[in-house]
Amino acid sequence: MGPLLDELRAALGDDAVLTDPDLLRAHQRDEADLCAAGTPLVVTRPRDTAQVAAVVRAAARHGAPVVPQGARTGLAGAANAVDGAVVISTSALTTILEIDPVSRIAVVQPGVVNAALGAAVAEHGLWYPPDPVSWESSTIGGNVATNAGGMCCVKYGVTTEYVLGLEVVLASGEVLRTGRRTVKGVAGYDLTRLFVGSEGTLGVLTEVTVALRPAPAESLTMVAVFPGTSAAGAAVAEIAAQGLSPSLLELLDQTHLRAIEAYQPMGLRRDAAALLLAAVDTGAHAADDLAALAAVCTAAGADEVYAATDAAEAAALLQARRLAHPAMERFAADTYPDGNGGLVIDDVAVPRGSLAAMLDGVARIAAECDVPIGVVGHAGDGNLHPNIVVDRADPASLDRGRRAFDEIMRLGLELGGTCTGEHGVGLLKREWLAEEVGPVGIRVHQAIKAALDPTGLFNPGKVL
Amino acid sequence: MGPLLDELRAALGDDAVLTDPDLLRAHQRDEADLCAAGTPLVVTRPRDTAQVAAVVRAAARHGAPVVPQGARTGLAGAANAVDGAVVISTSALTTILEIDPVSRIAVVQPGVVNAALGAAVAEHGLWYPPDPVSWESSTIGGNVATNAGGMCCVKYGVTTEYVLGLEVVLASGEVLRTGRRTVKGVAGYDLTRLFVGSEGTLGVLTEVTVALRPAPAESLTMVAVFPGTSAAGAAVAEIAAQGLSPSLLELLDQTHLRAIEAYQPMGLRRDAAALLLAAVDTGAHAADDLAALAAVCTAAGADEVYAATDAAEAAALLQARRLAHPAMERFAADTYPDGNGGLVIDDVAVPRGSLAAMLDGVARIAAECDVPIGVVGHAGDGNLHPNIVVDRADPASLDRGRRAFDEIMRLGLELGGTCTGEHGVGLLKREWLAEEVGPVGIRVHQAIKAALDPTGLFNPGKVL
Repeated sequence: MGPLLDELRAALGDDAVLTDPDLLRAHQRDEADLCAAGTPLVVTRPRDTAQVAAVVRAAARHGAPVVPQGARTGLAGAANAVDGAVVISTSALTTILEIDPVSRIAVVQPGVVNAALGAAVAEHGLWYPPDPVSWESSTIGGNVATNAGGMCCVKYGVTTEYVLGLEVVLASGEVLRTGRRTVKGVAGYDLTRLFVGSEGTLGVLTEVTVALRPAPAESLTMVAVFPGTSAAGAAVAEIAAQGLSPSLLELLDQTHLRAIEAYQPMGLRRDAAALLLAAVDTGAHAADDLAALAAVCTAAGADEVYAATDAAEAAALLQARRLAHPAMERFAADTYPDGNGGLVIDDVAVPRGSLAAMLDGVARIAAECDVPIGVVGHAGDGNLHPNIVVDRADPASLDRGRRAFDEIMRLGLELGGTCTGEHGVGLLKREWLAEEVGPVGIRVHQAIKAALDPTGLFNPGKVL
Repeated sequence: MGPLLDELRAALGDDAVLTDPDLLRAHQRDEADLCAAGTPLVVTRPRDTAQVAAVVRAAARHGAPVVPQGARTGLAGAANAVDGAVVISTSALTTILEIDPVSRIAVVQPGVVNAALGAAVAEHGLWYPPDPVSWESSTIGGNVATNAGGMCCVKYGVTTEYVLGLEVVLASGEVLRTGRRTVKGVAGYDLTRLFVGSEGTLGVLTEVTVALRPAPAESLTMVAVFPGTSAAGAAVAEIAAQGLSPSLLELLDQTHLRAIEAYQPMGLRRDAAALLLAAVDTGAHAADDLAALAAVCTAAGADEVYAATDAAEAAALLQARRLAHPAMERFAADTYPDGNGGLVIDDVAVPRGSLAAMLDGVARIAAECDVPIGVVGHAGDGNLHPNIVVDRADPASLDRGRRAFDEIMRLGLELGGTCTGEHGVGLLKREWLAEEVGPVGIRVHQAIKAALDPTGLFNPGKVL
């Protein structure tokens, strides 16, 4: 193994080739609980495309797998290391290369943090919409690799809608440029979107060209409190059926409401079965739009509907929603002390018309499998995160959690849904991907993987 | 070849296996002028997915190439037959299988005409936005295969933004299902968008699931008349820079204005160098938005700006824009009589900031190459159609036209653009695709083609 490290040090310099055991351990995994992770041989921090290509070439020569990592905030294990891997960290690829306000594009290196891009383009009156909950720490490269979603996607779309072009280092060490800088373009196969969401299995991103929008309108925010989750689901379906277009439509169930209040009191009603958090862009119709949303929620059975009185209250409501994940982690830790509480963060999307059925089904599955499951999600997209609480020290609890996870996946597919709305496949859902796309679909996936990465250099074991 | 036809007749019935010479001739080509076309052995009209798979399997067994065809309204030769081909026409695959107003999706067979889908979803208060000029005759399958654009794309996006899932018959005869019925989904590689825009080279579409939007708002329409084309281009850049969001922003140059007026008088100013046609969605800010567009155009040098006084005038202006193509064909026929007038319909997209430079460049190229070139296009997207008029009977004219075409492509790439904004590569732009994506890009294209269609069964000679 000496020669590989020597080659890497010669190409990148000693300070970008890291083998400290503590650091290697820190780079073993992303934020997915209960996924396998190995120990990398080395973590590299290349500073430009040529250095990335040098790392890929050296790893390929020595038969060492390559695992790309951004901020490791993923939730499916897609960034987890395997033993002996060469990790390519994008932490030294953090330059915003260009912002063009007329063509409304930005060109960035993959290690740029989502929030940093947002702040930079805001200075030009522009906006990069995709807003995963991890936006303050996750990177554009990671967002692209997982096709990240977020809260504003219900109106403004997910990451792939904003990626115009990519630069990618291939398994051969060659540098591929895909896509364009123009609004439209149909020159050849859509290689850009083949790489978006491919979770590091086809190449290493070294540059991303994204489309921007004009700065968002201010929004009006409202809350609807429901005595039952399926009533909230029915309200979401009716909102869609009426052609309303909220800029945000999130759901929090009682488990999450209580977990958030325990984690950090935000004034949410702990007795509510479910809460819908909605917003509309301002404009002359905003008050009417909000009233229409409120009317739908009331008709669907909400027992309280109220609007945020000011921007501070609206921001607090969004912040409460963003606390769902850490609050549930705390809830799991409180439920099973001594560090044994674990959280399986699921991610299923169904057609909006099936949202109520999915919510009812998750409640049934939680009861049948005897595990606590809280549900939070991007209700307006039909995208739910049933979060399953398990005791890692208790094999029976882990089994029940796994059974609940599988039942949720099965129900999602039965309802015409997908096994992952935004978190990706990673290690967590390989079997369910196979179930969803079927044997022909898997063969096509494998054929494309083999065409681009014939030796299986990149991120082995992920997705397929 | 007898056995192949016998197999096809056995699988589809005699009435769906057509060998009449006149009909074979009619299926030789799409609407692209000056592209090579062969004579198919047979035109098949399968009625369901199993019949499409049967045709593909039979053709593969006999080593006959397969060319899928929709309405043959394409403009790059992508649907042109090759000698001995088995054409798969989607003309008997015209069923709208499902419209779901709550989940806002439709599922259709590929031969459904764009306008027919539009009419069907309008009954549910819904809208399928992509609106190529050919919308009254072109099919959803063809729109997907070419990733068709249109006039509303400047605000609402092109075909690929609306395709959620596909059913595709592969070269093996297997049936692949891609994508989903949900708003969001990241399960595996984005195979859906790999097939969108692949111009029939990777498989035969048999079913398309599209996303729908609520019915569009009414719009307000305006016209700005410019004494120079580059001033119109500058106005478009400034509209983008100011963050304005017109729902339509089209450009017609003097050649087109005069051609349209000669073809069908619509009251357009024949003395204008260029005309911008813009619209905004109604709503409380519509009048302000229109005034802002008008102010930008005036500041950029427009010598007349006026709003359509009513819906009828607005519709007439859109109709005038839609006449650009037949009017230019007439203009070419009038310029070189005896059926010798030909039109090379080009399609280049540049970043909006480079639109004025592109317009100036096309004028320079027309003068240098001594060929008439009219420019029309989706200015708001930076997508222009320079239409080059040639005398098919005069090799020197054809040479000059070809030189102008190449110069336009070269300039488009120099300005950071793409060789095709919406018409596709087909036969017309294979060399320019290679120029645009480079040798690594072409190798990746070839690797993907080989992975999905190892014997080169589908649409040989197109794109690559």
